[in-house]
Amino acid sequence: MTIKQIILNANDYDGQKISISGWIFSLRGNLNIKFLELNDGSTVANLQVVLKKENIDLEIVDKAREGASISITGLLKYTPDAKQSVELHAISFELLKNTDEDFPIQKKEISMEVLREIPHLRHRTRLIKAVMLIRSTLALEIHNFFAKNNFLYVSSPIITSNDGEGAGETFVVDDESKEHFFGKKATLGVTGQLHAEAYAIGMQKVYTFAPTFRAEKSHTKKHAAEFWMVEPEVAFYKLNDIILLADQMLKEVISKTLVVNKLEFDFLEKNYDSNLREKLNLFLNKKLSIIDYKQAIEELKKVKDTFEEKNIEFGLDLATEHEKYLAEKLFNGPVAVINYPKDFKAFYMYQNDDNKTVAAFDLLVPGIGELIGGSQRESRYDKLLNRINELSIPADDLKWYLDLRRFGDSGSAGFGLGFERLIMYVTGVDNIRDVIPFPRTPNNLKM
Amino acid sequence: MTIKQIILNANDYDGQKISISGWIFSLRGNLNIKFLELNDGSTVANLQVVLKKENIDLEIVDKAREGASISITGLLKYTPDAKQSVELHAISFELLKNTDEDFPIQKKEISMEVLREIPHLRHRTRLIKAVMLIRSTLALEIHNFFAKNNFLYVSSPIITSNDGEGAGETFVVDDESKEHFFGKKATLGVTGQLHAEAYAIGMQKVYTFAPTFRAEKSHTKKHAAEFWMVEPEVAFYKLNDIILLADQMLKEVISKTLVVNKLEFDFLEKNYDSNLREKLNLFLNKKLSIIDYKQAIEELKKVKDTFEEKNIEFGLDLATEHEKYLAEKLFNGPVAVINYPKDFKAFYMYQNDDNKTVAAFDLLVPGIGELIGGSQRESRYDKLLNRINELSIPADDLKWYLDLRRFGDSGSAGFGLGFERLIMYVTGVDNIRDVIPFPRTPNNLKM
Repeated sequence: MTIKQIILNANDYDGQKISISGWIFSLRGNLNIKFLELNDGSTVANLQVVLKKENIDLEIVDKAREGASISITGLLKYTPDAKQSVELHAISFELLKNTDEDFPIQKKEISMEVLREIPHLRHRTRLIKAVMLIRSTLALEIHNFFAKNNFLYVSSPIITSNDGEGAGETFVVDDESKEHFFGKKATLGVTGQLHAEAYAIGMQKVYTFAPTFRAEKSHTKKHAAEFWMVEPEVAFYKLNDIILLADQMLKEVISKTLVVNKLEFDFLEKNYDSNLREKLNLFLNKKLSIIDYKQAIEELKKVKDTFEEKNIEFGLDLATEHEKYLAEKLFNGPVAVINYPKDFKAFYMYQNDDNKTVAAFDLLVPGIGELIGGSQRESRYDKLLNRINELSIPADDLKWYLDLRRFGDSGSAGFGLGFERLIMYVTGVDNIRDVIPFPRTPNNLKM
Repeated sequence: MTIKQIILNANDYDGQKISISGWIFSLRGNLNIKFLELNDGSTVANLQVVLKKENIDLEIVDKAREGASISITGLLKYTPDAKQSVELHAISFELLKNTDEDFPIQKKEISMEVLREIPHLRHRTRLIKAVMLIRSTLALEIHNFFAKNNFLYVSSPIITSNDGEGAGETFVVDDESKEHFFGKKATLGVTGQLHAEAYAIGMQKVYTFAPTFRAEKSHTKKHAAEFWMVEPEVAFYKLNDIILLADQMLKEVISKTLVVNKLEFDFLEKNYDSNLREKLNLFLNKKLSIIDYKQAIEELKKVKDTFEEKNIEFGLDLATEHEKYLAEKLFNGPVAVINYPKDFKAFYMYQNDDNKTVAAFDLLVPGIGELIGGSQRESRYDKLLNRINELSIPADDLKWYLDLRRFGDSGSAGFGLGFERLIMYVTGVDNIRDVIPFPRTPNNLKM
């Protein structure tokens, strides 16, 4: 039995004798009675334990510090009208392992910067605990969503001789001898998409969910060198189908997580962002809007004076402030911008008949901007090869990928969701370093 | 609607008009009637489509080769007593994309060696398709098992400055400039365990499920440079608890997969291993046996003449033939060997009172030998530090790990399951290269 179960169903446990192990979150009281907040990791919420002198040796309790692991047996009392609606009245108390005095996690607030120095301990604060519980649920609900919709989970490779986007900084991998373990240059994958495409032809609906890597020396709140990506790919899908899938996946995953992690959202709303659920519900309840890139540019031009970046022309990529305007002001909800100019999109995207744009989409949400990017893929061999040549990408490396188009590939579509960006959106935490257990950024590799 | 759903519930669809897209597995017939086996990736089983001259232009059908993608609408007929119990009688046929003549996947058998040269296409054979469908289910059921049992899914880092086992060949990671992107030496993780242990203290029940890496130049059927590991870690668990969890997880995951992938197991039994389900059921129905390493050595000595490796003494590790003997002959079922000599086990294992052995276990199964290895962890700071020093492991690198013992760690236990080894066991496929989509081995890095 977990503290999460006890708190959510306190009525069922009223009067029962319960044994529970966990860690002390806080301890206060006097010589006759102590109040201990116990956490067992199942939820960010703590169970209040009442320890009285007549039942428990309070001198032993007094030795226990915050963070110590303990085991308690007691009687559960459910008093729905009291300030503490659930309490465990201790019958026995065992101090399993104390913390040394220099245990850095204390009940008082510690700055996120300091916590990033101790990624092996910071999940013992309430904020990181809540975030990691939500992270875990989001991951599971993503798997569940795809399983329910008949998707195959594909392990795209991590070490690759292939460079997904044909651009971007990659990490190089070799063994200690530097003698090319694989007989050729090997890098860490920046995407699983190309490999997922191969599997979509034949398996139809597939997705990857794996770590990906960028060796970019960027120090923003949004970028990390190692992060997890969710990349579905579906044969026979066109642009509209894949946009619909993205919207459906986000809504289902988020709404289920709101239920499973009720106590964590209670905590986040109380302490960090009182509008968190309101923001998420706005997203859940609003039908996805779709706007053509060309039309979006016209709309942005109308209000160009409100932006720092006033250079708004067909052919230019949108800045985050532009994306936010579209989602927050123009549509006040999620919006998919479609049919971007091909010049700033990847080589594999389906070329529209206008010869200028590709069948790509970015899904923008209020508060964060781009959450998902995707496209219908170019399934016409000649058009794909021409684009590869135009961009001077070595076609030899992509021969296998081109060959898919010769072997029954009538088209597919897919998208990429940066998993940590989803967690940031759902929790309201604004730095990627705080939503992944052991963040990796330039000059930062702890443990 | 998928072909899997149609075949498993044919009765429900009898007489219905159905549209389905997929790829041609085989095509035969004459000028008046054609029989086409259609696969849509949802299962290894194909749906038989009947195309008659009066409804369909068979000249177009004739152009389609194996592997071509097509779309068909037809009426479903369920005839439980016929040889083909389900048939789709085509009303319309569309050839979406043909295959070029050099498409290497044909109905006739191709050797596994040849298929390994084309990992982007081999899932279009029935064997690899069946294996990958089972792989996907096993992964999902592992997530489900842990979620149901209140485990937190933790993303242990891939790039690390830490070397899990304190030994073993690792891959080195750097950016193109070789100027230490992270400001220090970085490697690809060989395990997520140490990081999972940090999270278990505070979150109690956690697991990782992520790629891990070994730069070993081994060319056996069991070893790959990149493979996925499942590593649960549970605070407050002792050796017996974690053995029970391993047994319970394996049994639940395998039994659910047998149901979900019924059609794939039908296929594997018919074509590759007629005893596959019998073997798995033996495992599922048998209670796990537990034997002390010391006692196992005595048992092995009794029959030492039957082994190639006759050197059997307390203090020596067991060879695979020894492990198989224990599981197949002595117990005729799964067996956990416990309390190994500390000399060939890792530094972090709990030191038993005899000062010779550690609270470790290997779970051996018939047909494969070791499937899982795990242990209770040494939670006593001094004992752990002494062992680290005895083995000349740089203690500075492990300061953070040692510190866990000073901060409320009253002990935990965990195990590691090589995910590909589980797939090999469940499918009966004997080479790790054939159970992971894009295998990575020395001098082999395709795509």
